[in-house]
Amino acid sequence: MESMNHELTECIINRAIGVFDSGIGGITVLKELIRKFPFENFIYLGDTARLPYGSKSPDTVRQYSLQNMDFLISRNVKAIVVACNTASTQIFETDYKNTPIYNVIDPGAKKAALATENKKIAVLATRATVAAGSYTLKIKLHLPDAEVFSQACPLFVPLAEEGWHDDPITNLIAFRYLQNLKSLDIDTAVLGCTHYPLLKSAIAKVFGNHVALIDSGEALAEELAIDFERSRMPQKTLFEHGSLTLCLTDAGQQFENLSLNLLSEVISIQPQFETVSVI
Amino acid sequence: MESMNHELTECIINRAIGVFDSGIGGITVLKELIRKFPFENFIYLGDTARLPYGSKSPDTVRQYSLQNMDFLISRNVKAIVVACNTASTQIFETDYKNTPIYNVIDPGAKKAALATENKKIAVLATRATVAAGSYTLKIKLHLPDAEVFSQACPLFVPLAEEGWHDDPITNLIAFRYLQNLKSLDIDTAVLGCTHYPLLKSAIAKVFGNHVALIDSGEALAEELAIDFERSRMPQKTLFEHGSLTLCLTDAGQQFENLSLNLLSEVISIQPQFETVSVI
Repeated sequence: MESMNHELTECIINRAIGVFDSGIGGITVLKELIRKFPFENFIYLGDTARLPYGSKSPDTVRQYSLQNMDFLISRNVKAIVVACNTASTQIFETDYKNTPIYNVIDPGAKKAALATENKKIAVLATRATVAAGSYTLKIKLHLPDAEVFSQACPLFVPLAEEGWHDDPITNLIAFRYLQNLKSLDIDTAVLGCTHYPLLKSAIAKVFGNHVALIDSGEALAEELAIDFERSRMPQKTLFEHGSLTLCLTDAGQQFENLSLNLLSEVISIQPQFETVSVI
Repeated sequence: MESMNHELTECIINRAIGVFDSGIGGITVLKELIRKFPFENFIYLGDTARLPYGSKSPDTVRQYSLQNMDFLISRNVKAIVVACNTASTQIFETDYKNTPIYNVIDPGAKKAALATENKKIAVLATRATVAAGSYTLKIKLHLPDAEVFSQACPLFVPLAEEGWHDDPITNLIAFRYLQNLKSLDIDTAVLGCTHYPLLKSAIAKVFGNHVALIDSGEALAEELAIDFERSRMPQKTLFEHGSLTLCLTDAGQQFENLSLNLLSEVISIQPQFETVSVI
């Protein structure tokens, strides 16, 4: 019996961790996960045929997210990371078809609540994530008297995708979106969209160094590490580098190049690209 | 027999003209059509659940466009206007399931070829439309020795949707995208994406008044008027205002407000909104 359990655990250990996002943004989360767990296997799904999610309705975002989760489960993953903030607002499950589900909002909210001193927190996100109000709700679970100010920044995603990361135009747009928050004396700001860490320097220029910028992807990787340590999730510890498969619902050279570029710091292997259908 | 033909024509006349776009951009085309044909009935389909098309692959854009056309045919339209430049690059049919198809690229290209004096034409469009090369091809059909310079302007769509139409930041971004074209001495520029007419003033500021800006939606409405006159397409001439149904694949208050705002100059009736599925 013990031997069977051992074999079962061995079998789960070698299964990949599934990560999905509406497109390329989740690669910033994947990068943190690979950095922290270099021996794990990963399957990343980018729903490039239907991106972005940030401007779509709650029902549509939930429907697309469940289809993505079903796809990853069909690939036999041992856990699913919802690496898209907008999708995370519509996935309330922590377990789906016997697979543990991790979203980016819970760890981001928790880290922000721990980081703030004056209890004034800004949340920068897509229109859909702001409208869902999930960050405010989750931050207040940890810190009931926190003041949370949300700001939708719809141009940040296309600016990040255009590659204008450290750019005077991006600085101007960041200033326009964020100047009101600055005057509200916040000391912590959540980067509540996976694209936003790419614009960290422009955001930091507006807020100044005394405002802590919380990267939800980083926070999620830290949370997952704690779960691994507590053995809730069997971790692969063999001394070999893991494999990486990048699945896209719409083929695109631009996406492939951008993701290789973003991952270059953390991978030495060539990931395998696949075009897939999730409906 | 003559009476039967007459009845048949009567019946076709009362059918609506179908117009589709990936989202809100095509409303600028619809507006030109309503202005020119105030007595017609229109059904507009905005594929808001999957927008935008401009960053997606040719195969995906064609698949989505055919699904949109099938939906409009199921609504018994008498003609279909492909009011999205990116979709127009992948729809080569002029007739589909016995329904005439009009795209925005053919009339835009023709009008640009007629407007230029020095035969130097710029095409401003999405990445996908530029990559397809359709404008260059179609302009050269009319003017074989034209020099055509294409420029993708990926931030124009989100700027238009953010409502920053006449704005210093939009002027700066327009300057960055267009300064090279300006130095190439073009005298005509095609607004090769249905969102771009909303940024006309920023674009004109960069090019100056001597560059003719061609609005493909306007050109299409002119082309359709010629077809009506030649009776290729039965026109409704009864003295009553037509009806307007706006179908969206993803419900959204923001889209409804924006389209009402854009159409306010040309409609006095309240359009009917429907959320529909096209797959």
